[in-house]
Amino acid sequence: MKMDLNSDLGESFGAWRMGDDAAMLDIVSSANVACGFHAGDPAGMLTTLRAAKARGVVIGAHVAYRDLSGFGRRNMDVASGDLVADVIYQIGALQGLAQAAGTSVQYVKPHGALYNTIAQDKRQAMDVINAIKAIDPRLVLMALAGAPLIDWAREAGLNVVAEAFADRGYTPDGALVSRREPGAVLHDENLIAQRMLTLVRDGVIEAVDGSLVRVQADSICVHGDSPGAVAIARNIRQRFEQEGVQITSFVDTAP
Amino acid sequence: MKMDLNSDLGESFGAWRMGDDAAMLDIVSSANVACGFHAGDPAGMLTTLRAAKARGVVIGAHVAYRDLSGFGRRNMDVASGDLVADVIYQIGALQGLAQAAGTSVQYVKPHGALYNTIAQDKRQAMDVINAIKAIDPRLVLMALAGAPLIDWAREAGLNVVAEAFADRGYTPDGALVSRREPGAVLHDENLIAQRMLTLVRDGVIEAVDGSLVRVQADSICVHGDSPGAVAIARNIRQRFEQEGVQITSFVDTAP
Amino acid sequence: MKMDLNSDLGESFGAWRMGDDAAMLDIVSSANVACGFHAGDPAGMLTTLRAAKARGVVIGAHVAYRDLSGFGRRNMDVASGDLVADVIYQIGALQGLAQAAGTSVQYVKPHGALYNTIAQDKRQAMDVINAIKAIDPRLVLMALAGAPLIDWAREAGLNVVAEAFADRGYTPDGALVSRREPGAVLHDENLIAQRMLTLVRDGVIEAVDGSLVRVQADSICVHGDSPGAVAIARNIRQRFEQEGVQITSFVDTAP
Amino acid sequence: MKMDLNSDLGESFGAWRMGDDAAMLDIVSSANVACGFHAGDPAGMLTTLRAAKARGVVIGAHVAYRDLSGFGRRNMDVASGDLVADVIYQIGALQGLAQAAGTSVQYVKPHGALYNTIAQDKRQAMDVINAIKAIDPRLVLMALAGAPLIDWAREAGLNVVAEAFADRGYTPDGALVSRREPGAVLHDENLIAQRMLTLVRDGVIEAVDGSLVRVQADSICVHGDSPGAVAIARNIRQRFEQEGVQITSFVDTAP
Repeated sequence: MKMDLNSDLGESFGAWRMGDDAAMLDIVSSANVACGFHAGDPAGMLTTLRAAKARGVVIGAHVAYRDLSGFGRRNMDVASGDLVADVIYQIGALQGLAQAAGTSVQYVKPHGALYNTIAQDKRQAMDVINAIKAIDPRLVLMALAGAPLIDWAREAGLNVVAEAFADRGYTPDGALVSRREPGAVLHDENLIAQRMLTLVRDGVIEAVDGSLVRVQADSICVHGDSPGAVAIARNIRQRFEQEGVQITSFVDTAP
Repeated sequence: MKMDLNSDLGESFGAWRMGDDAAMLDIVSSANVACGFHAGDPAGMLTTLRAAKARGVVIGAHVAYRDLSGFGRRNMDVASGDLVADVIYQIGALQGLAQAAGTSVQYVKPHGALYNTIAQDKRQAMDVINAIKAIDPRLVLMALAGAPLIDWAREAGLNVVAEAFADRGYTPDGALVSRREPGAVLHDENLIAQRMLTLVRDGVIEAVDGSLVRVQADSICVHGDSPGAVAIARNIRQRFEQEGVQITSFVDTAP
Repeated sequence: MKMDLNSDLGESFGAWRMGDDAAMLDIVSSANVACGFHAGDPAGMLTTLRAAKARGVVIGAHVAYRDLSGFGRRNMDVASGDLVADVIYQIGALQGLAQAAGTSVQYVKPHGALYNTIAQDKRQAMDVINAIKAIDPRLVLMALAGAPLIDWAREAGLNVVAEAFADRGYTPDGALVSRREPGAVLHDENLIAQRMLTLVRDGVIEAVDGSLVRVQADSICVHGDSPGAVAIARNIRQRFEQEGVQITSFVDTAP
Repeated sequence: MKMDLNSDLGESFGAWRMGDDAAMLDIVSSANVACGFHAGDPAGMLTTLRAAKARGVVIGAHVAYRDLSGFGRRNMDVASGDLVADVIYQIGALQGLAQAAGTSVQYVKPHGALYNTIAQDKRQAMDVINAIKAIDPRLVLMALAGAPLIDWAREAGLNVVAEAFADRGYTPDGALVSRREPGAVLHDENLIAQRMLTLVRDGVIEAVDGSLVRVQADSICVHGDSPGAVAIARNIRQRFEQEGVQITSFVDTAP
C-alpha cells in the first residue's frame, strides 16, 4: 500500500512568512508551490524548491487567480483569454525556478477560489486544462476527488490525480462539508490519522452522518499553516509508516 | 552583410496599450518581450509571442526590476538573492508562454534601470548572469555595446550580443550621450538610417563631435512606442533592404 | 434648464496613458477620478485634480475593486470587511490629493464591475454605502438611474444622484441594453446629442423598441477614452449650450 | 518627566500577519500605521486604527516607497513628482480610514529605505516635506535624531519630533551603528530599559566606545515584530512607569 501526501508550500511573500516549509517537506511527498499570483515571491519559491529537491519531494504548480491581497481566495470572473495565459505564465515561472533548483514541475494544482470554481464550472475548468495542454500535456492535474473536473480533464487527455482532504468532514455523497456547517473541519490528530488509514486501506471515509462514503483518492492534502496543522500532518505520516503505508508521489519518475 | 534589428514589445498591460507590436514585428528580426515585472500581462505577452512566431521573429526575455508603476525605469538596490530569482522567474514565465505559442526564448535583454545598472555594476551584473546560467546557459545575453558587462558575461561562459541604438547620439569614446545633454536623441529618419548603414558597413558611428567611433554591434535597437518611432524603424529596414543588408537574427536556429 | 456631465478621468497608470483628460475637462462639469485600485497613480491623479480645479470641475472618487490588471471590470466576491475598508482607503487617498490640489471630493462613483454589482446586490451595495458614511456622510453617491441602489442609499441617509449614459441604448423598462445585444452602444454624434437634449427637456429616452422611457437623471455620463468619444462628448456640450442647457454640477458649493 | 513611545503597526497584508498590534498598542503612545505601499491592507489598517483609538494611542502615517515585495526596504530613485504624490496619497488614505475609526492622523514617519534616504538626501527630503505641507502643514514629521532632515523640515515650517531607537547602538557622534558593525542591535531587556531611562533623564546614550553622546529625542521607537521585541518594549514601559516617567504622545490634543 502507498499514498501521496501533498501540501501547499512556498506561500511566504517578501517580508511575510507563512507556514513551516522545512517541517512540511519532511512529511509530504508532493509540494504544491505557490507561483506568485496568490502568494510566493521568486526568492522564496526558489528556496522552497531547493529544499524540496534535497528531500526528493515532487513539485506541483499551485496556480491561482491574480489576487495577492485576497490570497487567491476570492471568486473572480476572469475571461478565458486571461485565465489561460495567467495559468501558463505561473507554470512557466515555476518551471524556470525548478530548473534552477535542479528539479522540475510534475503536476498542477489550482489554488483557493480557482480550485473550487473549476471543480464545477466547465468554462474555467477548460481554460485551466487548455493552459496545461499548451505548456506541457504531460503535467498531471490534481483535482478534488469526485469533482466533474476530473472527467473533463481526462476527456481532454490529461492525467489526473484525485485528492482527499485529511482534516475535512465529508457528506454522505462524497463532497466536502461546507465550512459554514458543523463538522467541516476536524482537529483530533488521532481520529484524522485513523480516517486516512481507512481511506488508504478501504477507499472509504466516514461521512458526517456516520455512513461510509467511497472516495477515490490518489493523494491526501495536509496543511502546514499552523503548528497544530504540522502536528496533524506529522501524525498521519507516523501512522502510515507504522502501518506499512508507503508515502510516495503518484509520479514514477524521480524529479 | 547582415544585421539584427530588435525592439521592445509586449509592453501593454491590462486595459492599457503601448506601442504597435504588429507593425514592429513586420520590421524587426528580434522581439524583446516584456515579462510582467515592468510591463506585460500574460494574455498580451501570449498575443505578441504568437504574432512573432507567425513572422519568424526571434524571442528575447525583456527582464526588469519589479516596478510596474515605474515601468522598471527606477534604480532599485535589489539584493542578490531576490534579483537572481526575479530574473529566473521572468524568463521561465516567458518560456512557458513561448512554448504555448509554438516558439522559444533565445536571448535575454535586461530592461530600463536594470539594463543601465548592470552595464557597469558588477554585483547586479553577476546576479543577472547567474540567473541566466541557472535556467538555461544557452540563452544569449544582449548588452550595451562597449559595456563592461559584455566581458563579465563572456568570462562567465555566456554568449553575448552587443547592441547599438539607432536613434541615440554617441560620445567620441563610444558611450551613449546622456539624455541630459544635447544630441542625445536623433529624430531625422534619413540621417538615422544612413548612420546605421555606416555602422553595418564600416563598424563606426559618427560621434557628437564629428569623430568616427568604432562600435562593435551585433544588433540595432529600434523603438516602436510612437508613430514617429515606427517610421524611423521602417525607414532603417527599407534602407537596409535597398542596400543589400539582410535583416536577420543573431541566432542561427529558427525559433 | 441645467444638467451635469460626468466622465471617467485620471485613468492613466505609470508609463501608460489613457484618455485625454485635458480635453474632457473642458467639456464636463464633474470628473470621476480613478483612485489607484483599477487605474490611476498618485502623480497622474494629482495632475488631473489640478487641471479639474483650474477649470472649476467638481471631483468624484471613482472607487473600484482592487484589480489593476483587470481594470476593475471583473466581478469579485470581496468580503464586507475588505470592501468597506477598500472604498474608504480610495476615497481618503483622493481626498488627500484633492486637498493638495486645492479642491475637494464631492461625490463617489463606483467603477466597472463594482458599479454594476452594487446596482443590484444589496450586500455589496451596503458595504459601499457604509464606507461613504464612515468617511464623510456628506459625500454624494452617483448611481445608475433606476437601480435599486438608489433607494438603498437614500434610506441609509445618503444624497444620491442618478446618471444616464449618453452613448448607451435603453430597454423599454429603463435598463441599459446589454452589451451582448444589438443597440447597446450608439455612435451617431448628432443622434446622441439629440437624445440627451430630449432627456433634459422631457425626462425621457427613446428605447430600442421605439417607445419612450422615463429616466430620472441628474447627470449624464460621457466617455473620453478615444478621439471619437471625446467628439461625442463635445457635441453634447455644444448642443446643450446652443439650446440653453447649462452644464453644471449637481453640487451647489464650488469645490 | 515624560516620553513618547512609538512603534510600527498595521504591517500585516492580506492573509499574512506581522507583529502583535494588540500587545504593542498597550505599550506605546504613538502608532506608526502602514499605509499600503510597503505593508498594510485597508481592512487591517482599519482594525489597527480602531484598536489605537480605543486605547488613546496617537496615529502617525508610516509612508514608504511603493515596494510591497521589498517591504519598502530597498532604495529607489523615485522622481520628485511621483514621490510627492505617493506620500500625499498614503497620508490621505490613512486619514480616511482614521476618520472612519473615529481618530485622526497627527504625524508622519517615513519607513525603511525612505526613512534612511531622506535623513541625508535633501532632494527626497524636500519631496516628503512638500507632500506633508500640501496635504496638512499641521502634521508633525518624525525623524531620526541628529539627521539633517530635522533642520530642513523646520526651516520649511514643519513641526518635527526626533526619535531615538531603543534597541540600537550609537556611535560617539550620535549616529546609529551600522547593521554591518558589531554592537548595532541590543538584546538585553534590562540594559535597553536602563539606557532609555538615562536618555529621558539626562539626554544622553552610552555609545559603543563607552562615551556618552547627547541625543535630543522626543520619542523612542520600540519594535513589536517578534515576541522578544514585544518583551523589550514592555520592559521599557514598566521601568518608565516605575521611575515616574509618563508615557505620552508629543501631541497635546487628544486624537
